[in-house]
Amino acid sequence: MIHKIIEPSALQYAELCQRPSIDQALLTTGIQTIFNEIKRNGDAAIRNYTEKFDGISLQSSVLDLNGISLETIDISSDLKEAIQTAYANIYKFHEAQKTTDIEVKTMEGITCSLRSVPIEKVGIYIPGGTAPLFSTVLMLAIPAQIAGCGQIILCTPPDKLGNIHPAILYAALLCGIKEIRLVGGAQAIAALTFGTKEIPAVAKIFGPGNQYVTAAKQLAQNYGVAIDMPAGPSEVLVYGDATSVPAFMAADLLAQAEHGADSQVMLVLSDEQKLEETLMEIEKQIEDLPRKSIAKQALSNSKAIVIADVNKAFEFINQYAPEHLIIASEKPSDCIPYIKNAGSVFLGNYCPESAGDYASGTNHTLPTNGWARSYSGVNLDAFTKKISFQSITKDGIQSLGKTIITMAEGEQLQAHANAVKVRLEKMKLELFT
Amino acid sequence: MIHKIIEPSALQYAELCQRPSIDQALLTTGIQTIFNEIKRNGDAAIRNYTEKFDGISLQSSVLDLNGISLETIDISSDLKEAIQTAYANIYKFHEAQKTTDIEVKTMEGITCSLRSVPIEKVGIYIPGGTAPLFSTVLMLAIPAQIAGCGQIILCTPPDKLGNIHPAILYAALLCGIKEIRLVGGAQAIAALTFGTKEIPAVAKIFGPGNQYVTAAKQLAQNYGVAIDMPAGPSEVLVYGDATSVPAFMAADLLAQAEHGADSQVMLVLSDEQKLEETLMEIEKQIEDLPRKSIAKQALSNSKAIVIADVNKAFEFINQYAPEHLIIASEKPSDCIPYIKNAGSVFLGNYCPESAGDYASGTNHTLPTNGWARSYSGVNLDAFTKKISFQSITKDGIQSLGKTIITMAEGEQLQAHANAVKVRLEKMKLELFT
Repeated sequence: MIHKIIEPSALQYAELCQRPSIDQALLTTGIQTIFNEIKRNGDAAIRNYTEKFDGISLQSSVLDLNGISLETIDISSDLKEAIQTAYANIYKFHEAQKTTDIEVKTMEGITCSLRSVPIEKVGIYIPGGTAPLFSTVLMLAIPAQIAGCGQIILCTPPDKLGNIHPAILYAALLCGIKEIRLVGGAQAIAALTFGTKEIPAVAKIFGPGNQYVTAAKQLAQNYGVAIDMPAGPSEVLVYGDATSVPAFMAADLLAQAEHGADSQVMLVLSDEQKLEETLMEIEKQIEDLPRKSIAKQALSNSKAIVIADVNKAFEFINQYAPEHLIIASEKPSDCIPYIKNAGSVFLGNYCPESAGDYASGTNHTLPTNGWARSYSGVNLDAFTKKISFQSITKDGIQSLGKTIITMAEGEQLQAHANAVKVRLEKMKLELFT
Repeated sequence: MIHKIIEPSALQYAELCQRPSIDQALLTTGIQTIFNEIKRNGDAAIRNYTEKFDGISLQSSVLDLNGISLETIDISSDLKEAIQTAYANIYKFHEAQKTTDIEVKTMEGITCSLRSVPIEKVGIYIPGGTAPLFSTVLMLAIPAQIAGCGQIILCTPPDKLGNIHPAILYAALLCGIKEIRLVGGAQAIAALTFGTKEIPAVAKIFGPGNQYVTAAKQLAQNYGVAIDMPAGPSEVLVYGDATSVPAFMAADLLAQAEHGADSQVMLVLSDEQKLEETLMEIEKQIEDLPRKSIAKQALSNSKAIVIADVNKAFEFINQYAPEHLIIASEKPSDCIPYIKNAGSVFLGNYCPESAGDYASGTNHTLPTNGWARSYSGVNLDAFTKKISFQSITKDGIQSLGKTIITMAEGEQLQAHANAVKVRLEKMKLELFT
């Protein structure tokens, strides 16, 4: 079970922050073959891979959406309602992230601006399998729509009958997705990278996936396609104090542990008594879980750490930089000033990670494996890029010209200086004519 | 010289958008050796590499800044003044990019927020050599300061006497840089990745460099360190119409061409006559350039294209996605609505790229090689990450609980549902006690 560590020294922090390493290199050759094949043979190659990996022979990867409506999709009305509520919250939070373009007159005659422009074409990958990740459809398609991306392609593998899970379809249609392709795995990522007749090439690919999809996204970058962020197993760090509730912390840790055997579960507590109580709660709650064996494996990689001093505790937490950080306390706002590195933070005893995973409004696509030190989770920015513009009048270049020439000559770039000189000379000539 | 293409068909666009490919793989083994060596032997390895590559034996890579002041640095007062003017403009434009954190009550009892937090530790790499890139110091250190990064380490290789160029030193001190390390090449990137006693490990590395530095930055990502953006040779695309000035366009193209033999220079014009005039101007202006032979090599990879139709022209330009886009026209704002993909845009006949390279206020660290389809140039965001927070009250989880449970069960993640259920149950118990 979970490893206990009492008051580690700061020298131990680096080791405690280690995640299990994954060797991507082993996969790369196989993925490169798939990429070459898709580049060369396009949709014919897609058909072969779908038959091989998904066990279904499809004429086309295009899912025909004609005649399909939200009303006729076969999921319970409870689930429809839940997806709608989540949609509304996620939409509200991401719409509030719209920024206004800025424009600054840095000097007389010189105007600089920075404008957000949607990424034209984006791909969203949603894994298949028994647990349909319809929540991820919401998390990626909603900000893509708000950002105004011109073309949004959703790829997801077909089941053995050539269908996709109706909850994925429901979420996609609710988000206004118009193009769904029945293709999974590395072949989906390759198709979004090179484009085929049926699947357009995109500028950026979003979404989770198994190790093959992850390696394929990595490879896509070599061909000029951006990805949402580096991938790693999901993780949570729960920080608790004297006011936290062991049963809640245990439930939150188990929610993370059921994701996969490689999930990272960390508990940092200010006192040892709470730690013992929480571990006992875990033992109790785990027994009834359908994914008990997965959760047990995840817990065996996990750590429960006692650090009494709050400064030291957050020194460790910031070094760990958790994807999810739960502040299990009656006074969570006391901790906010300490937080420097985290993907998403859950404040208070009544704020489980599940809320953000599904429905509160925040995004659940977040940096793992310590990347929260430098990366943001997916937000509206992820679907846009910023372009800078500048306008310079004749007066402007007259004022700034000498500065540019002096700096260009200082860097020994004479042609850079000339680009200003030819303009100043023409203006001088115009004065005398 | 430059290749002429008249009215290409849309089918040719993809080929015209090709940049020369660079094979990074060849370098990787050598770079990995340097990484292993720095990780194992720290500052001792740094000393060896500095002696080997920079030809100077240094006791320490730490540049002692004691007693150095802006006044005593030995560069001309003209250059000091120019750097100050550039500093003021760049500061003004980047300070205006500060955003306010957002907070949204998505439902009663549920508050979601998104806060910008500075990246704690950043590294700035400035190449050495004869042309000192002090302008790049401004472009990276100014936004790092404004963002509030806690630690900013500047690495730059020493010359044969163990000094750095005084203009680089001046720009660094003006920006408030307190830590300069005399180390260059892949060994600098490795040191910023792993940390040594003298050089702190950072979360993100910025800055240009030769192919070894580029390959090292690529490798740093495998160790969890972010980089500013994928690197490629610099490039400009000049778009001109009947109102553009051939001498100006020629000067702008040559300013790009002098950067390096692999620079990309593209000219897109609405009429052939202007194209001929511009090519003649290039022939004339190139003869006086100190870096003439480099510029000639760059031009031999370059293309001058006539596309009369403005819609088609921008279809091509957006597909090319230039790092720098100059709209050489008396009415540049007519073109703005067409622009979808570019790093930085220069509007009008009196707005040379050199202005943005040095002093107008915009940043010159920009996406190359088509990455402008998905990446922004460096702006204030590049030195921060966004963390989402949520607070949920008892009433909040009461309202949203059913939604979360339904969705979690829909994804067959029972422990996710339990994290809500344990809370709802406790609240129910409290009601009856």
